[in-house]
Amino acid sequence: MSLREETIELHRLNKGKIEVVSKVPVNDARDLSLAYTPGVAEPCKDIKDNVDLVYDYTNKGNMVAVITDGSAVLGLGNIGPRAGMPVMEGKAVLFKCFANVDAFPICLESQNVEDIIFAVKQISPTFGGINLEDISAPRCFEVEERLKKELDIPVFHDDQHGTAIIVYAGIINALRLIKKDINDVKVVVNGAGAAGIAISKLLLSVGVKDLIVCNSKGILRSDDDRLDTIRKEFAILTNKRNVKGGLKEAIENSDIFIGVSAANILSKEMIASMNSDAIVFAMANPVPEINPNDAKEAGARVVGTGRSDYPNQVNNVLAFPGIFRGALDVRASSINEEMKIAAAHAIANLIAEDELNEDYILPKAFDKRVGQAVADAVSNAAKHTGVARI
Amino acid sequence: MSLREETIELHRLNKGKIEVVSKVPVNDARDLSLAYTPGVAEPCKDIKDNVDLVYDYTNKGNMVAVITDGSAVLGLGNIGPRAGMPVMEGKAVLFKCFANVDAFPICLESQNVEDIIFAVKQISPTFGGINLEDISAPRCFEVEERLKKELDIPVFHDDQHGTAIIVYAGIINALRLIKKDINDVKVVVNGAGAAGIAISKLLLSVGVKDLIVCNSKGILRSDDDRLDTIRKEFAILTNKRNVKGGLKEAIENSDIFIGVSAANILSKEMIASMNSDAIVFAMANPVPEINPNDAKEAGARVVGTGRSDYPNQVNNVLAFPGIFRGALDVRASSINEEMKIAAAHAIANLIAEDELNEDYILPKAFDKRVGQAVADAVSNAAKHTGVARI
Repeated sequence: MSLREETIELHRLNKGKIEVVSKVPVNDARDLSLAYTPGVAEPCKDIKDNVDLVYDYTNKGNMVAVITDGSAVLGLGNIGPRAGMPVMEGKAVLFKCFANVDAFPICLESQNVEDIIFAVKQISPTFGGINLEDISAPRCFEVEERLKKELDIPVFHDDQHGTAIIVYAGIINALRLIKKDINDVKVVVNGAGAAGIAISKLLLSVGVKDLIVCNSKGILRSDDDRLDTIRKEFAILTNKRNVKGGLKEAIENSDIFIGVSAANILSKEMIASMNSDAIVFAMANPVPEINPNDAKEAGARVVGTGRSDYPNQVNNVLAFPGIFRGALDVRASSINEEMKIAAAHAIANLIAEDELNEDYILPKAFDKRVGQAVADAVSNAAKHTGVARI
Repeated sequence: MSLREETIELHRLNKGKIEVVSKVPVNDARDLSLAYTPGVAEPCKDIKDNVDLVYDYTNKGNMVAVITDGSAVLGLGNIGPRAGMPVMEGKAVLFKCFANVDAFPICLESQNVEDIIFAVKQISPTFGGINLEDISAPRCFEVEERLKKELDIPVFHDDQHGTAIIVYAGIINALRLIKKDINDVKVVVNGAGAAGIAISKLLLSVGVKDLIVCNSKGILRSDDDRLDTIRKEFAILTNKRNVKGGLKEAIENSDIFIGVSAANILSKEMIASMNSDAIVFAMANPVPEINPNDAKEAGARVVGTGRSDYPNQVNNVLAFPGIFRGALDVRASSINEEMKIAAAHAIANLIAEDELNEDYILPKAFDKRVGQAVADAVSNAAKHTGVARI
């Protein structure tokens, strides 16, 4: 059976991938009187008197909403909320399987920023955290920004920060291996969507000084009037050498290429124009910016992709389950920069010095240590930065 | 341990009552590629091309939202969305245990009618049905009315219709027992909230001709300017004999008393003033309108309450799980009057002629036949009335 046939059958036979089950027995009238009326009035009354008890008496504290408007699902584009459901259910499955976080898909009818913000705020009493998913740029930035301000539970756009955290973890270990300092490297990020901008911002915040962002129209420049406000403000932080042109000009003499863009846009010549010990993360899915073998042949030393069938898969599943686990465990009010950076280091640190090599800079998806290591690091960072509430 | 201690411990030790689990295995990279990327793109693309496939490839078709604003939770009043959570989780547990319907609590921040309607419409792509719960009257009427019009999935306010259906089922069997005809009986409903009005409307639609509704201020009259629009329009349908006064005047020479009101408002004298073979449903919770033993002593022949420790418990759990099961099974676009009436008859018919007696007019909560019997009746009624979509 082909992958297509097998995956369609899996979804059809099971009618989706999640279910909501009881954690308590309901076998007789006594059980019923405890789980429902009249007993259930007791926890209700207690929560009314002390609202924080909702974390003790309900599943709110372990429940994350996976929210989408279906506007940027995988690489499929704007397919709408219903067609986005299989991805959101899949995400909920990963939350549960990788970190015992309960997650529930909420696919929203509207793609209007204000509608999304309003709806999420309305349903927020049920949830301990909000995972935004597959909402297209630039709307995703405003949605996340506003919800972070207006809610007292963590709000995290995984396409931005999950990806950025794993990329940074990979870079930490790649630099360990090739012995370059993050303050000295020249970085090119290709793709100026949600992921590209988040990766760039995170790298700038951890010491990268020379970073150029390209999109399909060339190098992002703050004097380009075609850019929207968000990208314009962001462009000021990048391209300090004022390089002109496109990807070809940007990548010359650079140390790190990070692609969150499109298939096959990178040539062997471009790779060859990079500095020695080049690091190439070609993460376009399913077809990378350059075939990893070609990149190696052209001189790249460390190559990562989004795929599980090549070495160094840059896979969000290493990050988001443990990040929410850690945030929920300490009832964090937000997921801040320190927590994200701590998560990246925790992931990187799982690979010991003597295991580290060109083909092993990131743990595998099923490395059972990852979820807890990330959760512990995130919990600790939340405590140190004062956002933990227990 | 007291009921209070036991129920608090149950909620605290389990941290609530529901969890979201995977229906598919995620043990290795192959599983991951089917449940998530890259395989998951296939059902997404298919749903994009044919939106109805969302019912085949996701859990939407088996997922009901249990929606509240926390404004009228149990008998506790307006305790807010967070304090309402234990009830909504309990409801989700009952949906799953009694009819294998997945249900998920959504507790809304706002108690404004427009906000509630907007939020529910926004999140509706995820769900196969909407169960409204514990929203206070008269707002609940408009919320349900509007959502029924504006959504293409079933919307059902259980406090209204679930209660009405069980009461009607009980009345069917009580009348079978005492051999009175529904067209001839005089009915008094005490309580003009969501349940009282829904019960009254259902009884009027199935042939009751003489029905009086009382609230704490007396008999509902269409010329009473203190009534809101909804109750005024409704009052026109009742009290055709133009009785004046309060409960005492209303109940005299009546055949059926239905209380959804308050503890101990019914005296033995009032019961004694009813016709022979009186039927009394005293459903105030946890303390009924009259103690069932007192009602019997005063001459009532059939007495039901909301409690499990007396005979004839009028319990919504007999209705809502099977109703949604039946509606979801045929992908009904709504739950219409015929489906509700069919549910009531299905419940009543489970008690055979030779089993029927004063203390057994309704099946027990844990009667395993109920869910499927109700589901079958509801599915069939949906088909006959043209709202079934498969």
